[in-house]
Amino acid sequence: MVASDPDHLQDFCVADKTSRINVNRYPCKKTVNVTEVDFFFGRGLANSAVINNLVGSVITTANVEKIPGLNTLAVSLARIDYQPDGLNPPHTHPRASEIIFVLDGELDGLAHYQKNNGVKPASVIAGFNSQFPGTQSIATALFTSTPLVPVHVLTKGFQIGTKGVKKMRNKLAPRKLIK
Amino acid sequence: MVASDPDHLQDFCVADKTSRINVNRYPCKKTVNVTEVDFFFGRGLANSAVINNLVGSVITTANVEKIPGLNTLAVSLARIDYQPDGLNPPHTHPRASEIIFVLDGELDGLAHYQKNNGVKPASVIAGFNSQFPGTQSIATALFTSTPLVPVHVLTKGFQIGTKGVKKMRNKLAPRKLIK
Amino acid sequence: MVASDPDHLQDFCVADKTSRINVNRYPCKKTVNVTEVDFFFGRGLANSAVINNLVGSVITTANVEKIPGLNTLAVSLARIDYQPDGLNPPHTHPRASEIIFVLDGELDGLAHYQKNNGVKPASVIAGFNSQFPGTQSIATALFTSTPLVPVHVLTKGFQIGTKGVKKMRNKLAPRKLIK
Amino acid sequence: MVASDPDHLQDFCVADKTSRINVNRYPCKKTVNVTEVDFFFGRGLANSAVINNLVGSVITTANVEKIPGLNTLAVSLARIDYQPDGLNPPHTHPRASEIIFVLDGELDGLAHYQKNNGVKPASVIAGFNSQFPGTQSIATALFTSTPLVPVHVLTKGFQIGTKGVKKMRNKLAPRKLIK
Amino acid sequence: MVASDPDHLQDFCVADKTSRINVNRYPCKKTVNVTEVDFFFGRGLANSAVINNLVGSVITTANVEKIPGLNTLAVSLARIDYQPDGLNPPHTHPRASEIIFVLDGELDGLAHYQKNNGVKPASVIAGFNSQFPGTQSIATALFTSTPLVPVHVLTKGFQIGTKGVKKMRNKLAPRKLIK
Amino acid sequence: MVASDPDHLQDFCVADKTSRINVNRYPCKKTVNVTEVDFFFGRGLANSAVINNLVGSVITTANVEKIPGLNTLAVSLARIDYQPDGLNPPHTHPRASEIIFVLDGELDGLAHYQKNNGVKPASVIAGFNSQFPGTQSIATALFTSTPLVPVHVLTKGFQIGTKGVKKMRNKLAPRKLIK
Repeated sequence: MVASDPDHLQDFCVADKTSRINVNRYPCKKTVNVTEVDFFFGRGLANSAVINNLVGSVITTANVEKIPGLNTLAVSLARIDYQPDGLNPPHTHPRASEIIFVLDGELDGLAHYQKNNGVKPASVIAGFNSQFPGTQSIATALFTSTPLVPVHVLTKGFQIGTKGVKKMRNKLAPRKLIK
Repeated sequence: MVASDPDHLQDFCVADKTSRINVNRYPCKKTVNVTEVDFFFGRGLANSAVINNLVGSVITTANVEKIPGLNTLAVSLARIDYQPDGLNPPHTHPRASEIIFVLDGELDGLAHYQKNNGVKPASVIAGFNSQFPGTQSIATALFTSTPLVPVHVLTKGFQIGTKGVKKMRNKLAPRKLIK
Repeated sequence: MVASDPDHLQDFCVADKTSRINVNRYPCKKTVNVTEVDFFFGRGLANSAVINNLVGSVITTANVEKIPGLNTLAVSLARIDYQPDGLNPPHTHPRASEIIFVLDGELDGLAHYQKNNGVKPASVIAGFNSQFPGTQSIATALFTSTPLVPVHVLTKGFQIGTKGVKKMRNKLAPRKLIK
Repeated sequence: MVASDPDHLQDFCVADKTSRINVNRYPCKKTVNVTEVDFFFGRGLANSAVINNLVGSVITTANVEKIPGLNTLAVSLARIDYQPDGLNPPHTHPRASEIIFVLDGELDGLAHYQKNNGVKPASVIAGFNSQFPGTQSIATALFTSTPLVPVHVLTKGFQIGTKGVKKMRNKLAPRKLIK
Repeated sequence: MVASDPDHLQDFCVADKTSRINVNRYPCKKTVNVTEVDFFFGRGLANSAVINNLVGSVITTANVEKIPGLNTLAVSLARIDYQPDGLNPPHTHPRASEIIFVLDGELDGLAHYQKNNGVKPASVIAGFNSQFPGTQSIATALFTSTPLVPVHVLTKGFQIGTKGVKKMRNKLAPRKLIK
Repeated sequence: MVASDPDHLQDFCVADKTSRINVNRYPCKKTVNVTEVDFFFGRGLANSAVINNLVGSVITTANVEKIPGLNTLAVSLARIDYQPDGLNPPHTHPRASEIIFVLDGELDGLAHYQKNNGVKPASVIAGFNSQFPGTQSIATALFTSTPLVPVHVLTKGFQIGTKGVKKMRNKLAPRKLIK
């Protein structure tokens, strides 16, 4: 999948986060208000994140929300840190293609999920062709979304019992994967 | 999500299904070989399909595979038939937006799944902005794909036991949803 | 022809019809104001329309004007009803490809016009890859537009006399084809 | 309307007109066979064309058919020459936006047709954002296409008699507007 | 390179230059305020410009800044006038493909620069597939931009001495090439 | 600038590098011949490259030439290594936006050039929204291209003498920056 913005008409269009107009991307800040800070994320991806969830991985995004200068440029990065046995569970990026550079450690998978089967922590840098690629964890989207997907849809769709659905909901609920 | 083909340079480019060149769409048939048959699907969507699977719904596509004239036109239709209590299980169309017209009956849902909670069969016509939108049933993609997603990814990702994963795989395996 | 919107950055962008900013599509409503009503058209296309014009057909659109949730999704539907001998006269959709599903009856044509040569009413559902495809009846665009195309352009362009142009203008003027 | 080709992956892709593969644009010539001739049209648009038709105007295109180097670049030119009282009749460019530079003389119109109401010849250079924009004269497309649009569609669509349709067909038939 | 705007949803979107919202293109003027003046540039490109700079050429643009009606149409023109021995120095158009029609005289080059090696003035009309293609003279961008590129980057990048860089800066500084 | 490929019709289209057809991207390999090797670059970017040129930096690309599975996905990475005082000289990526992650060391610049003003080597990972973004060093493109830009264009364009141009050509010629 590819997300792009082929109608570039200026060298940059820094996101104006104070605008009250929402046009499927941010309007541009006035050029006089643009500073070099709009194009940097400081040490945002330089350090590994603290992992404190069931699946054992955390995603740190460097998208237009963090770097306003990425607005309309259709490119962004993310860092994913994995503890040993950590999993970046099955997910999709609804608005982007992805390419991964392994910073540290070794990983299995690399297609729609990655698993750190080594004994040391692992980290990757992921590149996307969207300034806001999105990440959707399939399990949490189906079992813990608001509003909830009805139980009978999940029992029929996954061929499991009502009890099974409720158990999965309880376990998956508190997870927070992206910051 | 949107799939399109903005570089139209001819009025039509009927899919040449005999070509040995694969270019992320079909090459075009020579114009002299194009006939009106290339633009019709006969009674392809006119009748409801026979439903013989666990979820109680069948999708009949009218995409570029069935109508070669749709090649490069970025539009297609599908018909979905539901028996009472039938479910079109949670799925995504990785390459298209969708709009639904209800032919018969009444449906719950209409977002990422539809369920026929009425006592009569139901049918819809779905419109897509791709000549090959794709349909991916989430449960079968995760539990019955080839090659299989490793059990430990599913146990961790869905927070279920190994036994649960295997049971789901067995039940989901024989399902055939799209024709 | 293809109309699309490849720079999707959110799951939806419901048309804010109250906005005073016009940006070649509607700005997005604030998410907190979005309701499921924004994604439905009620029974909008379920029933045939009343036909009361010279050509014997009526188009009912289900585009972003009727379904605000279609904004930026690049997909829409329309229903066309034809009385016996009714014609959907030669026209173009300047911003979309089209695919047609015949609901009732039989039609000749199906390329740039359709004619109901049967003895019963006919209806079709048309799918488009734009949320606002537009429909331009060629005859009315040339002979009854505001401002009028000068008579001497039409006499030379169509090789007819001045009297012929005025007669056609009178007959074509009162027609209303789209609702 | 806009025609473009956003997936540029090379500096140029000169049309290989000898290729037997048709992919909605020309495949690229091998780079070793590309010469500067592929990027020039000699004096193609420098001189006015001979006008010998009923409407009094001729279009000379400078598109990918004439300049193979334009392939995939989504830009082209055309020259239109008008004798006094000459008309470039109502038409559409199905795959491009247009901008016009008046070389000589004065013109009325400039929207969907142009008329030389002066006493001297006139000429324009038209720029398009497609390497193959297409030009469709509405009158000839409807009254002299192959296969013919049925008479009853035209009588109903334009509200004229059968005799009128046949007269228009005869007059419009021999016209040749584009070279 | 190609700049386009594939999501056309209206026949025109005349630039509203008074808008305080900046959305990587101009928002649209209200239709009731649109006049035919929005689509013309008067005699803007009809006459040669006065050349009063070191390189001996001047570019006159006819883009969305001059013709508000070009907004979203992804097409524009420019006129370039060259005195004998005049040079349109090496440059890039960061957002468009270009095609050139020679109005008067003869030119060498035509790729990334043009030089009038004849004894008479020369002029060209350039067509672009963007309503705002941009023009960046490489020498001025590197040696006279604000803020200045550091001297040590230029000495290392171009393998010249500090004195050479300063001499080039002084000579290139006063040049004004585009109006 | 943005390069993309919005007409995705399959999950992947691995580059068929043996194809004799060139269509502005690689045709797709037959699915049966696709292996996981097509999606990996081994340790391609894991280690710093040897720097043996005048400017003191080397770019190692991870694009569709190295990873055939990137074909049509509009995403790629590159690694740039800089010795102390090393410069990635002024350049453009004609077909992509870029985002940079600093692996080691500290850099000045980061806009159109980067300079390692520290005392230790530095390395970055660059993300692009094209599978083949291209990199054009401005100095070498102008002073050492084949065929050569004529001396009089460079003397006039950069306001330097003939001797200066020849000196720059000699120094810039042997440089090899990208592997």
